[in-house]
Amino acid sequence: MKLYGYFRSSAAYRVRIALNLKGVTVEHVPVHLLKDGGQQKLPTYLRRNPQALVPALELDDGTVLTQSLAIIEYLDAAFPGPRLIPDDPVLAAKVRAVALAIGCEIHPLNNLRVLNYLKGPLGQQKDAVDAWISHWMLNGGLDAVEALLPGDQFCFGNAPTLADCFLIPQLFNARRFNVSYDGFSKIKRVELSCEKLDAITDAQPARQPDAE
Amino acid sequence: MKLYGYFRSSAAYRVRIALNLKGVTVEHVPVHLLKDGGQQKLPTYLRRNPQALVPALELDDGTVLTQSLAIIEYLDAAFPGPRLIPDDPVLAAKVRAVALAIGCEIHPLNNLRVLNYLKGPLGQQKDAVDAWISHWMLNGGLDAVEALLPGDQFCFGNAPTLADCFLIPQLFNARRFNVSYDGFSKIKRVELSCEKLDAITDAQPARQPDAE
Repeated sequence: MKLYGYFRSSAAYRVRIALNLKGVTVEHVPVHLLKDGGQQKLPTYLRRNPQALVPALELDDGTVLTQSLAIIEYLDAAFPGPRLIPDDPVLAAKVRAVALAIGCEIHPLNNLRVLNYLKGPLGQQKDAVDAWISHWMLNGGLDAVEALLPGDQFCFGNAPTLADCFLIPQLFNARRFNVSYDGFSKIKRVELSCEKLDAITDAQPARQPDAE
Repeated sequence: MKLYGYFRSSAAYRVRIALNLKGVTVEHVPVHLLKDGGQQKLPTYLRRNPQALVPALELDDGTVLTQSLAIIEYLDAAFPGPRLIPDDPVLAAKVRAVALAIGCEIHPLNNLRVLNYLKGPLGQQKDAVDAWISHWMLNGGLDAVEALLPGDQFCFGNAPTLADCFLIPQLFNARRFNVSYDGFSKIKRVELSCEKLDAITDAQPARQPDAE
């Protein structure tokens, strides 16, 4: 399988963590989001993902799967290894809700194409863009995630799940944009647990072959 | 079970469709997003959903599930009736990807709290807000959904799935904001199929008890 990604994309980062946790090896194909006017907009990539977003997972038969959450659900169902989504429907809903709180409510507002629209068509300066980023991370964002977490070693229980796959890249983004989450003790505890796992640290942007 | 929702919330609308398709009856508890400064921000509601968003599904034991996609996955796993997410992992990934293309890439940018931020802190006028709404629906939004659909009677196959639960409310939003999707022939075909099903039309905002 091939994973089309970008070292700094937090959506690709989520899938890299999931692949490592499941012990699944793929070929990594970098798609540079800034070079060539955005390689994700090139026709060769749009044929794979018409949303012009990374990641995309190309299966050995050429089928292309898009959207990080859908890709991780696929990996969890199709491959052996630790379960990232619990079997119990109620616990699964809680795990998915934390992933979605990040994937639907924080990340879409802070990703590259949205920040470019704020700076371009809306003519916003750096201060206003920084305030926008911070606002959505901390208002109905990481604050809500903190409230949704039970206070376990990982997001839910004693091993990483789909929720951790989403949380760790979002914390990377928070640090990148200088948004402090030090006050969220449950999140900090989860982060410390995750930092001890090679499967998670090996997925860090700086450790990818396309890192700059 | 109780569903906390709002007639016009497209996230609540998705769950109403899923409940109807599964034949599951719940008590509907309206949370008015505009009255009282937003009833979703009242302490009684925040205890249920710290994200201050609808919908939330309260189970009979008091457990509260949040995030429409997580709620629909729960309903599909916990209740009999037609499967909304196919068993086949590859097809399931494609169904989820369409739902997520809408739930992550279109809806979060056009929901009430974001439009309020554009008008408030960013001081944008109606024309700029309308252009923002239209931009995200048609650029990497419904255009990408059209490309991801195979051209079946429903989003995938001959019966509605999770993808249709997400598409129909997004089309309601498009009409509400005067964004035309007439050029998307696969989406239009799916819409026509969905309009023939009472389970889907009964979930329309105008047919809810809290509709104004």
